[in-house]
Amino acid sequence: MLVVVKSGGAAAMPEWRAAFAAALPEAEVRMWGEPGVDPAAVTHALVWEPDAGVLATFPNLRLVISTGAGVDHVLADADYPRHVPLARMILPETREGMAEFVGMAALMLMRDMRTIARQQTERHWRIPPEMPLARRTRVGVLGLGALGLHAARYLATLGFQTSGWSRSAKTIEGVATSHGMTALPAFLAGCDILVNLLPQTPDTVGLLDRARLSMLPRGASLLNVGRAAHVVTADLLALLDAGHVSTAMLDVFDAEPLPKDSPLWDHPRVIVTPHCASTPSRTDRAHRAAALIRLAEAGEPVPDLYEAARGY
Amino acid sequence: MLVVVKSGGAAAMPEWRAAFAAALPEAEVRMWGEPGVDPAAVTHALVWEPDAGVLATFPNLRLVISTGAGVDHVLADADYPRHVPLARMILPETREGMAEFVGMAALMLMRDMRTIARQQTERHWRIPPEMPLARRTRVGVLGLGALGLHAARYLATLGFQTSGWSRSAKTIEGVATSHGMTALPAFLAGCDILVNLLPQTPDTVGLLDRARLSMLPRGASLLNVGRAAHVVTADLLALLDAGHVSTAMLDVFDAEPLPKDSPLWDHPRVIVTPHCASTPSRTDRAHRAAALIRLAEAGEPVPDLYEAARGY
Repeated sequence: MLVVVKSGGAAAMPEWRAAFAAALPEAEVRMWGEPGVDPAAVTHALVWEPDAGVLATFPNLRLVISTGAGVDHVLADADYPRHVPLARMILPETREGMAEFVGMAALMLMRDMRTIARQQTERHWRIPPEMPLARRTRVGVLGLGALGLHAARYLATLGFQTSGWSRSAKTIEGVATSHGMTALPAFLAGCDILVNLLPQTPDTVGLLDRARLSMLPRGASLLNVGRAAHVVTADLLALLDAGHVSTAMLDVFDAEPLPKDSPLWDHPRVIVTPHCASTPSRTDRAHRAAALIRLAEAGEPVPDLYEAARGY
Repeated sequence: MLVVVKSGGAAAMPEWRAAFAAALPEAEVRMWGEPGVDPAAVTHALVWEPDAGVLATFPNLRLVISTGAGVDHVLADADYPRHVPLARMILPETREGMAEFVGMAALMLMRDMRTIARQQTERHWRIPPEMPLARRTRVGVLGLGALGLHAARYLATLGFQTSGWSRSAKTIEGVATSHGMTALPAFLAGCDILVNLLPQTPDTVGLLDRARLSMLPRGASLLNVGRAAHVVTADLLALLDAGHVSTAMLDVFDAEPLPKDSPLWDHPRVIVTPHCASTPSRTDRAHRAAALIRLAEAGEPVPDLYEAARGY
């Protein structure tokens, strides 16, 4: 068994190796692109943004595992060997960390912490004229998959009026759910804060364009913890500048690291976070990967596998 | 019945007057210091930081109400007429807003949002090396009164390991409580995040000095939503600069507005918020004041009265 790892570069390899040595001692672990690796010996791959074409050169590959919850960065490789199962990486810690980040962000957007931070930079003391409360604030979660479901529950626990939208029907206690494209305008119209947690699929790319973002009530805020490709950045900037969208808190970007010359960095109505909403430790992820590999090797069902029919 | 109001200045009077006209139409409402008010006619006062000596000039004063949850700013008047009952202003919205602010702040401190905000200013992309989770983070609430109790419960709901300390024994489900000065060092040693919600009394002024803040584990953070006088600012700055305290989020200051030349404004480890943690609207507070006045006039017990024996 030989696992190749592409995530975090050479600096991350000692942590990956140590965790696999504990969790899957029978596996040989090699870095992606490391010299002297026989492609025919590679049986498993743990990857983030794998270089296009490389996975197809491993004839005996049995399972590919994403180091994140999404697999869009793997499927971007047009030569991905479609017969090899592809697993998403969703730990309890992924759900938990995401819910807590979303909860924090919703409270920050409700309290307009972007303005308060700018006031601090300007040494300007100004008490907000009104104190909003969670029970008077409507937060909508777009996407009720593994992460969205948990985040919606957490928001409801925090006291927000919580709603959720997904492609197929879902029921969540304490959360008003709707589904399907025809229900989307009404869902968006009822969001003071919109949380994007959709998976990236051909259907969801560009979903949050000028038309859809304009369906939010004037002054609503956006939290994007899904993928940058869901949001048309130029449209978002236009709506921010027009005051239709009050604040955008963005954790994902078309290019990461976010380029130095991006207008998002110092936009007065944008909060930039460095794709940190929910990333469990490498050790925790290596243990999860080891567990998925063991299940696959034993012929047991592997959870969180990519399904081509639904696109994630 | 004549109510004098000192809170928010002339600009706030229309809102106070309109709310009292609805909630207590039989009362005449006058601004503090307004010419032509007969001191003998003043029966009630609704105040924030009343000028020293003035309340003592109203011989027929029957009730003084603070426009905030604390009364220290009233008792700072050495001539306060001690025979006149003094009420604290605690609405359901005060408790709720404070709990939500404290929950937001605890999540922000846990995720080191001060550093992430600075990175945005510097256009610097750096993913935090670890993702902390609420269930691995210990938050301690100092002061379990009307606001502290509710905040502690909310923190527990958010998933934090929550503890609370108060002068007298309290029991709160899901919160580890301790009380009394001998228990304080152990309480502080168990806080990754310390939330100050003590009332300001002669006993609590200066409580968080160098010695006590040093009892926090190295790298702990402080949220002060109580009173500035609880914290010795010079000691806090020294411990921040020494790295013992990681971040301080401060909503209350020795002088407010915070002076332009304060070193807190641009301290890289300090988050400044403009005393906005929990202030219900003037309309809501006028309605609450009206309710307290009605109870007092009817000879019924008035809730949240200041008690000299306990100091708040």
